[in-house]
Amino acid sequence: MVRLRLDVWYDGTNFSGWAAQPERRTVQGEIEQALAAVLRLDAVSLTCAGRTDAGVHARGQVCHVDVPGIPDTHELRRRLAGALADDVRVHAVAAAATDFDARFSARWRRYSYRICDDLAACDPLERHRVVTWKRSLDAALMNEACGRLLGEHDFAAYCRRRPGASTVRTLRELTWSRADDGLLQARVVADAFCHSMVRSLVGAAVAVGAGRLAPEVPAQVLAAGVRDPRIMVMPPHGLTLEEVGYRE
Amino acid sequence: MVRLRLDVWYDGTNFSGWAAQPERRTVQGEIEQALAAVLRLDAVSLTCAGRTDAGVHARGQVCHVDVPGIPDTHELRRRLAGALADDVRVHAVAAAATDFDARFSARWRRYSYRICDDLAACDPLERHRVVTWKRSLDAALMNEACGRLLGEHDFAAYCRRRPGASTVRTLRELTWSRADDGLLQARVVADAFCHSMVRSLVGAAVAVGAGRLAPEVPAQVLAAGVRDPRIMVMPPHGLTLEEVGYRE
Repeated sequence: MVRLRLDVWYDGTNFSGWAAQPERRTVQGEIEQALAAVLRLDAVSLTCAGRTDAGVHARGQVCHVDVPGIPDTHELRRRLAGALADDVRVHAVAAAATDFDARFSARWRRYSYRICDDLAACDPLERHRVVTWKRSLDAALMNEACGRLLGEHDFAAYCRRRPGASTVRTLRELTWSRADDGLLQARVVADAFCHSMVRSLVGAAVAVGAGRLAPEVPAQVLAAGVRDPRIMVMPPHGLTLEEVGYRE
Repeated sequence: MVRLRLDVWYDGTNFSGWAAQPERRTVQGEIEQALAAVLRLDAVSLTCAGRTDAGVHARGQVCHVDVPGIPDTHELRRRLAGALADDVRVHAVAAAATDFDARFSARWRRYSYRICDDLAACDPLERHRVVTWKRSLDAALMNEACGRLLGEHDFAAYCRRRPGASTVRTLRELTWSRADDGLLQARVVADAFCHSMVRSLVGAAVAVGAGRLAPEVPAQVLAAGVRDPRIMVMPPHGLTLEEVGYRE
């Protein structure tokens, strides 16, 4: 068997998330089906770095797959483009080391989250990947609140619990900046994220930016270790998996 | 009556173009309806700088409208955002001089056209505004061909004829460049454009870039003055009205 690394982009709008599920259109399901068809195999099994939820996008998802024999990766990339719908693209196909694991070799994941807080000025062409917020948000307050969450913590208060799974993570970066076009954008980097963690952290930041919570509250909630009803999970379509980092 | 200038952005995907038509969802129709509702008028009449076709987008459409009395433009902008669907936005509302005419005062219009010619690398999140082309295009040849079209000419060969309308236009700029992400983008500026002119010019450029026509052919077709079956009208969704220029 040969291990391949696939770099994958998708518009999450019309997918029930990454993970294959019966009767649902999923990114994993679509790519596994296309790979099997192109390589004339009964089935293949993909492993990815970040199992994104329904509606979440990716411009830097990474997966691995084992295939028998060494394929022409250039040709495989080309044929996958023809076999897949245009809302998912396999940007790159490359032979990987046998010990490369898209999930367990990853050292960090970087996500972005986009918010437009001037309803009249939101770009209609970006509406499928930008969340609108009706009143203006204070980015400085959001950065103040988010700076207190950095480092290694038990993020249980910001995770949807999965039985047996640890919720200890190292949050390396969570910064808000305003683009030239007025868009408010978060850059979020951690070793890994538990389920719905980015969207919950963004929900905490937005509550602060809107003046509904004081900037110290999100860190207090983190320390308390239980989910807080004042902190909403933000909608998925503002979220994009941008990059996964590996050891050289 | 007071004349207002409106700056309008839209995603053309779900519109039958700019111009109001009975039983069709159009940009003009939607904004006229929203304006009338917000201002409690029976009807208002919008005039725009560029009557875009079905599927064409805008991030810099300009219109004017006459309304009785002086509205609070800030409040009007806010209320229009609430009244309109999220695929059309009135970015700016401002009082204009009584002799300002969105169409006839315009000195130039600038459009962009976007093509992705590496099928596996096309960004799924951009697919509603980028046309895909299955083989790679030679941007240098396209620029060579397009440079010969600049200046004042009768563009009849690149226009869908409208009875009684002139097809003489001054093409100021038509350049192709490759963005960092590999996207091929045209920047097209003229005093005005006749019907389907940008999409026909892009069709000529693409035929050259694909090696199907020699770089001198588009200028020969221009000189011949009649539409040429070798030159296709490219799809509308790659086209965006970016900016309209007025005298200060």
